[in-house]
Amino acid sequence: MNLLEKLNWRYATKRMTGKRVPEDKLNRILEDIRLAPSAAGLQPFHIFVIGNAELREKIHQEACTQYQIMECSHLFVFASWTEVNEKNVGDYIQNTATTRGISTEKMSGLRDNLLSIPLNKTAEQVTAWTARQTYIALGFGLIAALMEEVDACPMEGFDADKMDEVLGLKEQNLHTAVIMTLGYRNVEKDWLVNLKKVRRSKEDHFTIIE
Amino acid sequence: MNLLEKLNWRYATKRMTGKRVPEDKLNRILEDIRLAPSAAGLQPFHIFVIGNAELREKIHQEACTQYQIMECSHLFVFASWTEVNEKNVGDYIQNTATTRGISTEKMSGLRDNLLSIPLNKTAEQVTAWTARQTYIALGFGLIAALMEEVDACPMEGFDADKMDEVLGLKEQNLHTAVIMTLGYRNVEKDWLVNLKKVRRSKEDHFTIIE
Repeated sequence: MNLLEKLNWRYATKRMTGKRVPEDKLNRILEDIRLAPSAAGLQPFHIFVIGNAELREKIHQEACTQYQIMECSHLFVFASWTEVNEKNVGDYIQNTATTRGISTEKMSGLRDNLLSIPLNKTAEQVTAWTARQTYIALGFGLIAALMEEVDACPMEGFDADKMDEVLGLKEQNLHTAVIMTLGYRNVEKDWLVNLKKVRRSKEDHFTIIE
Repeated sequence: MNLLEKLNWRYATKRMTGKRVPEDKLNRILEDIRLAPSAAGLQPFHIFVIGNAELREKIHQEACTQYQIMECSHLFVFASWTEVNEKNVGDYIQNTATTRGISTEKMSGLRDNLLSIPLNKTAEQVTAWTARQTYIALGFGLIAALMEEVDACPMEGFDADKMDEVLGLKEQNLHTAVIMTLGYRNVEKDWLVNLKKVRRSKEDHFTIIE
């Protein structure tokens, strides 16, 4: 299958079988997500990948009652930064310097630019901006899964504050932006599996100006 | 090349050659983007695909001075809804009903749910939410491009209000969330082409809880 066929094969899988995604597939999906771009390459988020059934049970009880939490192989919690600060920008500058073999001093301009982000934004705007970057990685995760013929469901219908609480995110300056379950479709139980995909037409979705 | 190789091949292309992306590749990229999922399938954004050189010149002068605007084949402007209202929710309900052959009456619950979104959010929060959905489509666009071995550059470094003005977006209840240029890398002029990709390590980017 090419990408287009796979995109038509995928859907937001509501019921899963509980079957585990093999290690090699999971690792490739993680690597694809890791390579997702972000503004200035800052990657202002952290991703929790939860196979552990007890923890998923707790999340199911406290933050999200949907079936997939328990029926998936792994639950991905995309948690975005609530702050852009000296520490996380410093780590980013250090990583860039090390990777490219340059001195951190040469990157002081970029460093100052990044540290000016919170000066021009409210706390809510900073979180909105880091969340947007996180959604690029979500998009990459969804395609990474379908390339492995693994099902996935992106989800917003959960209690983000409760999710933060269960995972102890607030004290790490993180806030849950979106979650994704990874696993295999249960074709007998899923009401959505045979419904037609709904998208706006090309004509309505795009304005092409040649 | 598999997805991982292609992800390593891609980079935020800063200088392009001006060469045009063939129609068949462009159409597949549009179709991949059209199939991107969004919360409740609402697709709360519209995408302008600008090949026209005069319009890109105007955008270059007024909203974004970066080279790629003039050197790309097509400029994608991802404009997200500034409102969730009776009209756009109504269109979505109608499209879903038509596609799936059901009556719009049966979808009154979903309709009410969607119309309640702006009731629980400030105008800024609505725009932040629609922008997040838009970034999933951006992620799809970036992968769609690399699958066609076409270069792309996601960009935030532009004047969104000016962009809105040039394209007349405000009166359409749209606001530019992010842009992407599509084209071919200029290996001689691009300072970034040979620099190592910088990403946080797997250990630092993910917390895996088995």
